[in-house]
Amino acid sequence: MTNAQLQFSKRMEPITGSAIRELLKLTAKPGMISFAGGNPGNFALPDEAIADIAQDMLKKDGKKLLQYGPTEGYRPLLDTLVGYVAEEFSVTASQEEILPVSGSSQAMDLISKAYLNPGDTVLVESPTFLGNIQCLRIFEANIVPVPSDDNGIDTVELERLINMHHPKMLYTIPTFQNPTGITMSLERRKTIAQLAAKYQMLVAEDEPYRSLRFEGTPLPSIKSFDEGGWVVLMGSFSKVISPGLRVGFMVGDATLIRKCTVCKQSADVHTPSLNQAIVNEFVTRGLLKPQIEKACAVYRTQMHTMLEELKKIQAIEYHTTPEGGLFIFAAIAEGKDVGPLFQKAVANNVAFVPGEPFYPEGGHKNTLRLNFSNADVDTIRKGMSILRSCFDEN
Amino acid sequence: MTNAQLQFSKRMEPITGSAIRELLKLTAKPGMISFAGGNPGNFALPDEAIADIAQDMLKKDGKKLLQYGPTEGYRPLLDTLVGYVAEEFSVTASQEEILPVSGSSQAMDLISKAYLNPGDTVLVESPTFLGNIQCLRIFEANIVPVPSDDNGIDTVELERLINMHHPKMLYTIPTFQNPTGITMSLERRKTIAQLAAKYQMLVAEDEPYRSLRFEGTPLPSIKSFDEGGWVVLMGSFSKVISPGLRVGFMVGDATLIRKCTVCKQSADVHTPSLNQAIVNEFVTRGLLKPQIEKACAVYRTQMHTMLEELKKIQAIEYHTTPEGGLFIFAAIAEGKDVGPLFQKAVANNVAFVPGEPFYPEGGHKNTLRLNFSNADVDTIRKGMSILRSCFDEN
Repeated sequence: MTNAQLQFSKRMEPITGSAIRELLKLTAKPGMISFAGGNPGNFALPDEAIADIAQDMLKKDGKKLLQYGPTEGYRPLLDTLVGYVAEEFSVTASQEEILPVSGSSQAMDLISKAYLNPGDTVLVESPTFLGNIQCLRIFEANIVPVPSDDNGIDTVELERLINMHHPKMLYTIPTFQNPTGITMSLERRKTIAQLAAKYQMLVAEDEPYRSLRFEGTPLPSIKSFDEGGWVVLMGSFSKVISPGLRVGFMVGDATLIRKCTVCKQSADVHTPSLNQAIVNEFVTRGLLKPQIEKACAVYRTQMHTMLEELKKIQAIEYHTTPEGGLFIFAAIAEGKDVGPLFQKAVANNVAFVPGEPFYPEGGHKNTLRLNFSNADVDTIRKGMSILRSCFDEN
Repeated sequence: MTNAQLQFSKRMEPITGSAIRELLKLTAKPGMISFAGGNPGNFALPDEAIADIAQDMLKKDGKKLLQYGPTEGYRPLLDTLVGYVAEEFSVTASQEEILPVSGSSQAMDLISKAYLNPGDTVLVESPTFLGNIQCLRIFEANIVPVPSDDNGIDTVELERLINMHHPKMLYTIPTFQNPTGITMSLERRKTIAQLAAKYQMLVAEDEPYRSLRFEGTPLPSIKSFDEGGWVVLMGSFSKVISPGLRVGFMVGDATLIRKCTVCKQSADVHTPSLNQAIVNEFVTRGLLKPQIEKACAVYRTQMHTMLEELKKIQAIEYHTTPEGGLFIFAAIAEGKDVGPLFQKAVANNVAFVPGEPFYPEGGHKNTLRLNFSNADVDTIRKGMSILRSCFDEN
């Protein structure tokens, strides 16, 4: 028996939960080959190193790690992040411009809470990450999709939409985008930083995949071109150390960080100190770089295997060729629907994600997202061959 | 240089951050005797046991704990919580009625998001916990204080206010209340459960201190008298295991839990699995009961020492006599202001919290909150003797 009289908030009316997370539950049955998730490969989770670090830190500084900590973050991690964002993102930031958060999803929640009023327009790449679309919907944003191509957001179209909608914010994943795997060009990164200042539009730059580069040259973040404090960078250790630890960070204008800190006070008080200390120690012990190199070497092979197999599927008319990250995006013929192929694939124990939910405007039923990080080369071959028989059967 | 053009959301306009957390920073200087916080005593933080558990769990099940986990919670902890809420709170709940959260503060954030519209009236005990008042303010609730006495909320006055304001929700801390230390009587608990159903008002029952009972008889939770799904219980392991781990839980109607789970998906995806596993293992290894007994034995002595010393201060005209928890609430003569005494005390290296910020309606400048968990008996004697000289000097 449930209470049918409960009157939930208006903001929840259009919210149904993440289609992907629900779908992942369906595909969690034994024997399923899953190209559906966005998980790091299990091989890439440094469980032994973290077991040692956790014990060391708790033995050394347990009372402090188990007591309440500051909302502003665990001080040694803040120290480390100043250097980390300089090196990784070419961003110079003081501690007042950085906030450790409980996974970078929390950054989106805090920014939405501190910065958005119901009805404010937020531009988003289309397609884009579902979880953050859901967050924006809960905060009753007016979500307007911006078309993107193989170089990321179409910035001409972007400026046109800015003039039309006067958006409060733009949300973008410039590097190895979810779901496309596409990386925004250097020129467009600069243009977006300029447009942000010109039109007083906050840019929420989501960079969880950035370090997973297998080939090509790293590009500076949009934040690195920010001069007026109009770009807020959201970073994460989920894809390079562990998603289960839930440690990310945000870097932005000090007044924005302060407002987000106040929101965080009453949201979860602080990110667990033990988790912040584990991440900090992992980085300061010099384990992060070799860890990323190890993961990237494997992911690279897995991605190329998947791309090779993908080319064999005749029904696939388009696919992206990423230089890193976790995803390949693909499409069958325009006007066709991957829905029945998804059902058939799942019945044959292979899962992927249909592309439609990634488009805030819907449609694009002919697209799909494939993840290559979570299955080894043999499994990818086997799974792709099953997909081929499902896709090319008719 | 900060960006002065950033236009924060309307909901943030009246929000200044937690007065207490800001005050605690001021009083964090070395040599300060602090009766200001709400921290468990450092002696009560089981750092050695948790160092062992963390290592064991990461060695045994590290890949799983470091990978993404379900928003619904770490399955073994859910199993444990079903038994735990039955034993501790006399509440029968299925797993669909329980959600592990990142500290019980997150429960308040999720409930506010899922259930409250701007302008909805929320009744709160006055005085009450600041952090959750701030959360309600961010969600633009119309906060209406309900008077309470030495038996908790005045339920006659409560019903009058319900009829006057048609509130959407009541927020209450029935056991060893923050800031008063007062425990609501059995009769009033039953009455509140009845009023909730009668007036279709959600009751958010916050129970972080419940297990810290030094004397007297445990009372059933308000939730245990709930028949129609109108009570949601917020529980925490912060005061009995570790606040730094940030693990709490909520128990309520399955549809409410589902909506809160959807909100949690885009707030922080899930509570860190390692932290949930540590708490679960601490409970299932049978460590929680002895841990609580050990802490309570010490807290009891500390509380009685503080009460003894408090009686020696002539300026104190009233104080509560709790049966557990972390706090004593006290008052000097009506019309007087503890503000200058607070300044004088801090100058003499003793900190407490003035009572005014705990009253949503303000005023009550003659009140103060004293914490006894975070200083040993000798320090309490010393600090209280300094307070006595500050309070009784004039």
